[in-house]
Amino acid sequence: MVITGSNFFPESRVVFLEKAPDGRAQWEADAKVTGEKSKGASIVAEVPPYHNKSVTSAVQVQFYVCNGKRKRSQSQRFTYLPVRKIPLHWNWGLRR
Amino acid sequence: MVITGSNFFPESRVVFLEKAPDGRAQWEADAKVTGEKSKGASIVAEVPPYHNKSVTSAVQVQFYVCNGKRKRSQSQRFTYLPVRKIPLHWNWGLRR
Repeated sequence: MVITGSNFFPESRVVFLEKAPDGRAQWEADAKVTGEKSKGASIVAEVPPYHNKSVTSAVQVQFYVCNGKRKRSQSQRFTYLPVRKIPLHWNWGLRR
Repeated sequence: MVITGSNFFPESRVVFLEKAPDGRAQWEADAKVTGEKSKGASIVAEVPPYHNKSVTSAVQVQFYVCNGKRKRSQSQRFTYLPVRKIPLHWNWGLRR
């Protein structure tokens, strides 16, 4: 995932966050920051795996960038999609 | 990515393939198989990164499962999407 903006550093944290209906954080995970480019105007991060691998519909979470205490970006939406199951067939029967 | 079907083994290879307009393979990569479940009826594989990270439109490739010489599944389509750049803003100005 590429995030564009400003004030990004290699030590910036990218935090993914899921909020419960009451507004409390019910899941939090750091994305692995793999690069920072163009004089701090973009940051590359690996999206952390969602905690529940068996969801069957899209899940909306948020993420923000954190440069230290009180230096936190606005939150942005991020949507996890359920795992697609791709059916596969074999040719054996046809080749007999 | 979860592939469903039959005859999947931990040693099955999942091969991604991009064909040139003339039908020749111009890129090939193995997906890392991370699991096999339900008595060989599904296989879990990590989609390999596309070779060109700077594509700006969707790219269609194929993949197949290979259990050894001449034991190859039919090909399935797979679409790589271009990297999304997510703009991010900081709250600092608002909090002054």
